[in-house]
Amino acid sequence: MTSTTAIGAALGKEIAERIDLLAGISESADQLTRVFLSSEHRAAAELIQSWMEAAGMAARMDAIGNVIGRYEADTPKLPALLLGSHFDSVRNAGKWDGPLGVITAIACVADLNRRRKRLPFAIEVAAFADEEGVRFASTLLGSRAVAGTFDESVLATRDRDGVTMREALERFGLDPTHIGAAARAPSEFLAYLELHIEQGPVLEAEGLPVGVVTAISGATRLSVTLDGMAGHAGTVPMAMRRDALAGAAECIVAIEQQCKNDIGLFGTVGSIRADPGATNVIPGRCAFTVDMRCASDQHRRLAVTSAVRTIERIAKMRGLSPQVDITHESRTVPCADWLQAQISAAIERQGHRTLALPSGAGHDGAAIADLTDIAMIFIRCRGGVSHHPDEHVTPQDVATGAQVLLDVIENFAPKARGGVQ
Amino acid sequence: MTSTTAIGAALGKEIAERIDLLAGISESADQLTRVFLSSEHRAAAELIQSWMEAAGMAARMDAIGNVIGRYEADTPKLPALLLGSHFDSVRNAGKWDGPLGVITAIACVADLNRRRKRLPFAIEVAAFADEEGVRFASTLLGSRAVAGTFDESVLATRDRDGVTMREALERFGLDPTHIGAAARAPSEFLAYLELHIEQGPVLEAEGLPVGVVTAISGATRLSVTLDGMAGHAGTVPMAMRRDALAGAAECIVAIEQQCKNDIGLFGTVGSIRADPGATNVIPGRCAFTVDMRCASDQHRRLAVTSAVRTIERIAKMRGLSPQVDITHESRTVPCADWLQAQISAAIERQGHRTLALPSGAGHDGAAIADLTDIAMIFIRCRGGVSHHPDEHVTPQDVATGAQVLLDVIENFAPKARGGVQ
Repeated sequence: MTSTTAIGAALGKEIAERIDLLAGISESADQLTRVFLSSEHRAAAELIQSWMEAAGMAARMDAIGNVIGRYEADTPKLPALLLGSHFDSVRNAGKWDGPLGVITAIACVADLNRRRKRLPFAIEVAAFADEEGVRFASTLLGSRAVAGTFDESVLATRDRDGVTMREALERFGLDPTHIGAAARAPSEFLAYLELHIEQGPVLEAEGLPVGVVTAISGATRLSVTLDGMAGHAGTVPMAMRRDALAGAAECIVAIEQQCKNDIGLFGTVGSIRADPGATNVIPGRCAFTVDMRCASDQHRRLAVTSAVRTIERIAKMRGLSPQVDITHESRTVPCADWLQAQISAAIERQGHRTLALPSGAGHDGAAIADLTDIAMIFIRCRGGVSHHPDEHVTPQDVATGAQVLLDVIENFAPKARGGVQ
Repeated sequence: MTSTTAIGAALGKEIAERIDLLAGISESADQLTRVFLSSEHRAAAELIQSWMEAAGMAARMDAIGNVIGRYEADTPKLPALLLGSHFDSVRNAGKWDGPLGVITAIACVADLNRRRKRLPFAIEVAAFADEEGVRFASTLLGSRAVAGTFDESVLATRDRDGVTMREALERFGLDPTHIGAAARAPSEFLAYLELHIEQGPVLEAEGLPVGVVTAISGATRLSVTLDGMAGHAGTVPMAMRRDALAGAAECIVAIEQQCKNDIGLFGTVGSIRADPGATNVIPGRCAFTVDMRCASDQHRRLAVTSAVRTIERIAKMRGLSPQVDITHESRTVPCADWLQAQISAAIERQGHRTLALPSGAGHDGAAIADLTDIAMIFIRCRGGVSHHPDEHVTPQDVATGAQVLLDVIENFAPKARGGVQ
């Protein structure tokens, strides 16, 4: 059953056209790459600002290069419902990751504006300038600046050409000493809603166009090194070996099994290196990474402890010396229950079953949670593929996403507290 | 119990001194590296030739750069017992791999010569110029030339500086069009005996200074690629993954288990690569090598077939596409039973238990087997370490090896056949 209405289809068509326009702004003609503080950042920001203005918003670039548009409430200066996502990209990106949330939010405001409809709260749309962190290997720069959690030490970070972020900001026309001006106050916002492609295969497998996100999962990354004894592949009997790669292989199989048996846990070994790495030499050393994610911090920490114990047990049995280091740890950011409930209601009003799922990927919402309650709407993407030119969303799912977001906005009820409502 | 006699100790001392002298001939002062057709090849050949002449041999460099010495029998022009090993090295080598066999053979002849003892057969000592194949990535060049199996197509091979083997031979003063002149006739030899360090840990584990080799094991090398589906480490549920590295890990554990359960089989995964190889991306492709060795060709082939079936079964269960290619295959070269029996008898006469073991590494004997029956004596090396500066043989084991070789020579009985004896 399709529930796309005429207005949904019209919104969807406009959004898809703008996705293509924005995708045309790239540092190379054959691949989509748009990084922080580049000339493409500038061109994309100007285009987004023009769309915001056409949608009836007052729009401006802030101190970190985000584009912020504001659609006033029926009364001026009321707190705003903040909508948004990012418009930078990974290298050789797909065109939907980030822009879909920005453009859909603008399209919803445009639809209200066309109907001359004002709500009892303002709407702001934030197009964040850096979420992926490609240029300076530091993510969520745009949303952190808005949340007031921008870490000024990253200004000294250099890109691959040796340019510091401080220099890049100056060349872009921004003042690195005034990034604090991008920070907003919690009292200015009622909540943050982000629409984003799922970047995973769950909605497709469930046959659903949209889903409501429960949390942005925390993650722990481990760097593991096993030291054994290198040796000649033809002369050391199997029983006398201390083969570091064979030990790593046993760890990888065990970690996969642990995660398969533990609902909600994601475990990945993405990188491996065996030394010396010759066909005819038993590996004396093997290094690999472990990425573990879960929508519960406690659950994840228990799982990491268990995985480390497994690695240590396997190493001991094989006479290998293990070294396990935590290289990254991020906490889980829950989506507010009251916002999840409003999104679920909108999804059901639009004729779909609600599926609640965690986000295993990071999003701007994780930074904005320091400012206001957040929630996210996920849109089905083909095959779960993202960060790749094959990233794809059907026109009908674009329309459905827009209808759901518009429904949430028009029916939005701020959390009961002093002030608004 | 030590059975080193005074003469054994004297031989051992001379051999150890010459090992150090030869180790001083290297392309760099801090590492031992001596490659084919280098100035170090020239200097080492001249030193070896001088030792041969001092031992009462007529010595010469042959058409490929080997040094060949001949100690006549009690009657001139009789067929020879050929002794030998190589004097080239890997990069950053140990000093025993190759030279121990050459120098010990010369020391045994020197001892006969000091005693003015002639045998009813000639002795030749071959110091082969290239066994490791470091410079032109093609092994056993010296012994193949002597066996008449030198492949002239390798003359076009270039070293890492772009010099062809043909050019290198000319610069060295040899004629690349006359390598055939190094080839010898089967009728010239009674047998080939090579003394070599074990390059493995078995003799050390058994507490034995020497062993008799049963065969130079054949080997099969596989290149395996598993193709799955890359994906985000945080968004693809465990049950929906087609993780190529996790599949490879299961294969590696299974191959190790297969080889542990199958006496005489050696299986090694020495090299692995996961793509894209990022901490937060499920590997979509994983490539690894498999090296399988066994002293029986049929046993090895059955084991390889079984390993390939295991890889295919694991790939199928995981929705991965496997590609398995054989990149190298060498046959097993058996050591002649009649020679093994004479070596075992000598070991026992010298007061040691005989341990028969296969050689998992390749040796010049594998090429000389095309010319005459071969056998090998292995000498214990510390920790089984080889191809490394830590390679070490104790003075007492050097002496024991020399006594055993001398015993074999003095008691050598040619195989019953027309001609000699």
